[in-house]
Amino acid sequence: MSRIIQKAACVGGGVIGGGWIARFLLNGIDVAVHDPHPEARRIVGEVLDNARHAYRAMMNAPLGPEGALTFHDDLAEAVADAEYIQESVPERLDLKHRVFAAIEAAARPDALIGSSTSGFKPSELQVGMAHPERLFVAHPFNPVYLVPLVEVVGSPVNDEAALSRAMEIQRETGLHPLRVRKEIDAHIGDRLLEAVWRESLWLVHDDVATTQEIDDVIRFSFGLRWAQMGLFETYRIAGGEAGMKHFIEQFGPALKWPWTKLMDVPEMTDDLATKIGDQSDAQSGMHSIRELERIRDDNLVGIYQALKANDWGAGKTLREMEDRFFERAKDSAAAAAPDYAAPLVLHETRVPGDWLDYNGHMTEYRYLQVFGDATDAFLGHIGMDAAYRAPGRSVYTVESHIRHLAETSVDTRLCVRTCVLGHDARRIRLHHEMVDEAGNVQATSEHMLMHVDTNAGKASPLEAPLTDRLARLSRGQRGLTAPAHAGRPIRDIGWPEPV
Amino acid sequence: MSRIIQKAACVGGGVIGGGWIARFLLNGIDVAVHDPHPEARRIVGEVLDNARHAYRAMMNAPLGPEGALTFHDDLAEAVADAEYIQESVPERLDLKHRVFAAIEAAARPDALIGSSTSGFKPSELQVGMAHPERLFVAHPFNPVYLVPLVEVVGSPVNDEAALSRAMEIQRETGLHPLRVRKEIDAHIGDRLLEAVWRESLWLVHDDVATTQEIDDVIRFSFGLRWAQMGLFETYRIAGGEAGMKHFIEQFGPALKWPWTKLMDVPEMTDDLATKIGDQSDAQSGMHSIRELERIRDDNLVGIYQALKANDWGAGKTLREMEDRFFERAKDSAAAAAPDYAAPLVLHETRVPGDWLDYNGHMTEYRYLQVFGDATDAFLGHIGMDAAYRAPGRSVYTVESHIRHLAETSVDTRLCVRTCVLGHDARRIRLHHEMVDEAGNVQATSEHMLMHVDTNAGKASPLEAPLTDRLARLSRGQRGLTAPAHAGRPIRDIGWPEPV
Repeated sequence: MSRIIQKAACVGGGVIGGGWIARFLLNGIDVAVHDPHPEARRIVGEVLDNARHAYRAMMNAPLGPEGALTFHDDLAEAVADAEYIQESVPERLDLKHRVFAAIEAAARPDALIGSSTSGFKPSELQVGMAHPERLFVAHPFNPVYLVPLVEVVGSPVNDEAALSRAMEIQRETGLHPLRVRKEIDAHIGDRLLEAVWRESLWLVHDDVATTQEIDDVIRFSFGLRWAQMGLFETYRIAGGEAGMKHFIEQFGPALKWPWTKLMDVPEMTDDLATKIGDQSDAQSGMHSIRELERIRDDNLVGIYQALKANDWGAGKTLREMEDRFFERAKDSAAAAAPDYAAPLVLHETRVPGDWLDYNGHMTEYRYLQVFGDATDAFLGHIGMDAAYRAPGRSVYTVESHIRHLAETSVDTRLCVRTCVLGHDARRIRLHHEMVDEAGNVQATSEHMLMHVDTNAGKASPLEAPLTDRLARLSRGQRGLTAPAHAGRPIRDIGWPEPV
Repeated sequence: MSRIIQKAACVGGGVIGGGWIARFLLNGIDVAVHDPHPEARRIVGEVLDNARHAYRAMMNAPLGPEGALTFHDDLAEAVADAEYIQESVPERLDLKHRVFAAIEAAARPDALIGSSTSGFKPSELQVGMAHPERLFVAHPFNPVYLVPLVEVVGSPVNDEAALSRAMEIQRETGLHPLRVRKEIDAHIGDRLLEAVWRESLWLVHDDVATTQEIDDVIRFSFGLRWAQMGLFETYRIAGGEAGMKHFIEQFGPALKWPWTKLMDVPEMTDDLATKIGDQSDAQSGMHSIRELERIRDDNLVGIYQALKANDWGAGKTLREMEDRFFERAKDSAAAAAPDYAAPLVLHETRVPGDWLDYNGHMTEYRYLQVFGDATDAFLGHIGMDAAYRAPGRSVYTVESHIRHLAETSVDTRLCVRTCVLGHDARRIRLHHEMVDEAGNVQATSEHMLMHVDTNAGKASPLEAPLTDRLARLSRGQRGLTAPAHAGRPIRDIGWPEPV
């Protein structure tokens, strides 16, 4: 499965540009960066650190190789052979126009150009361009490597095929592109945020609530709902069986109540700015910005995984991204000729923060999760995929024996070495060894796997291609010495003398 | 650990009242309900079904016994001995006044009275009351049994001690009360929602976006962020090390841009109402309302658990709720004299939706999670708590042998029977048997536990009170016959004939 594009270019780093760089890089796409800011490499590096931490925690799939990252003092050199170019320079129209002119002078004629702008319309950006039809707005949200939405906006001159292609590329990096049908100031998301922002400023200004209280209202009420369903769907449920239109008609009159001060905007005086700054310090000052970023990202990763369990919203986006990573890993494995004279390495992972127990180390059942994932990788390797299972064949684990040999810390990169200990027509006896980066054995497991007819609910013989691939594998591995502990029971330690 | 109150009363059922009933009931508090609506019992029953499903999935702790639920045609009878009374009748001031008068005539003098109103201020509600100081607004969010926020608002006549007591009671039901410091129309949350609602109506009215597009913008961007951090904290991070005040000063000028149409409100014509209804049907009509409720709640439960892994926001609220449930279970267990002549039942749980594998059954490692939780319950039972561990003593699992005997389905209520197979100065050999409601054995596990000095990183002898309690337990259980499979290895099945 090849990459959708070979090369992207990012003009402008910073937090937003850095997030785009991370998206491309971690999805195996080479990125050339041009940013004259003296701190560009450091800032991009920090964003990449955050992104790698988040992806390791979030993805069950192996991350695979990153793309190559290069920095270029010359903008023309950076964009020269890029198929997709993302602009994330400061929000000044004259600066953006100069940047687009420079890009056009050097880029491929078919290169797509997206702008991260929050405030300008595509038609404003396109003024003076030779080929405005390939420039569009692609407005992301912070942190770009984790928040999936990108608002894609065109003007009447835009080439629909180019916009579709741009969104296809964005999807391959795990983004969720949304085509905004008309160009308007601030697109959609920032308009909604501006509405909440204004009302919040009034509440602070009038001492009705502090920044902490407003934030807690959000994250303990509708903020939770909105991670998975938006405004209209939530109200549809509230409206019940009578339906959405009925709900609207009942709810309509409320709009005339003097509920909001939205008719007006409070003046941002120095006093108001200071008040907000002080309240924010009181609310969040116990953490540095880097700490807050890490907390935020760990939370977002968890929310992604929660929604993935239900294949919903952002969780579905994550699952699709994982499927692509799994595909790539499978292709890599298939391409490499496996050496069956040694234990197979089919699964790697890293220990995320939410795998720890009250002793502060990787908790017991996560070992079995890692071993289970290694068993799944083994089964995939011998040909058990969704197509094999579809008519009603599967492999169940009927017995597992785990030895915990070391305490495993957060962030440890684990790799599992697998060998077959024996097999017959229906069963496979498997051994896994979990090692850290230094090769220290963290744990071992031994499993009995049983091939089953899932319709009949009973054991059944393995079928092709599993039989052939397993035979080939076991011929190679039969020469390996079985680990000394394999085939042993848990030791009987008896009882102390009666008291 | 006794219940904070014995009895609550709910005047008005419906979706909101039903949510309050669920909160009290599932936290072991008796609830008397008065609602003259002919469908009251059915509607409340449906809310309780949803709530039970959600709590079973969400809570690792045993749910314990529910409170008693009674319906009363006579309001006076319903409120008579209630310590906390929650009103959730329709949003009509005259009706609420009549209800408060009837409550006051029959309630205890020290009963606290909360109103679920979204639109009235406490001073408006309090008009005509004999003791207005014990009436306050306690405004919840749908679904009340899951969304933690309750906005608590008083007027100048309110008794601060009564409000504090009310919030203490609300916290005991897993709510997150937020004291709103001034009474204003719609409190805080609904004002923010109204702001987004108005802007969204304009976007639909002007055909800039459909209901689906607006909802997707929300749930794929800032909705995800707001499940864990609010507006101000998010902006603080975006502002970086320069600080919040600097961010505000930079961001201030944007407020003057013509970004929003918030100066005005679109007229809710029949055409606009129909357009919204049709778009909502296209977006969400593939699911019934009950299905959407179930999807919503499963997502919210997952989000709660994700945040609990980081002890953050609503996740911290969940952990505190679980701690209370664990305490109650421990007290129940301590109160009951354990029968050590039989296997001990120390852990029960139910299989939630996100525990399933691609075969649609409980996935392999979750069995070890359940067995691990049973081991933790056993260790707690013999006295290993945070205080025992604090100086550097703990118990690690060094070996586990699991036999999977049946496929376990979602929602199955599991219980684990535990017995000690042997022990010496440093080690305990433990056996768990996992059964379903019908007593069918789903799986068994055998474990070797090792007592360790966590500072030295080596095995060490068990100490009091573990030694005494373990001795007492094992004397009782020594008579039990060890399961036949205990102490056996995973069977060696050899290799097929070479081809």
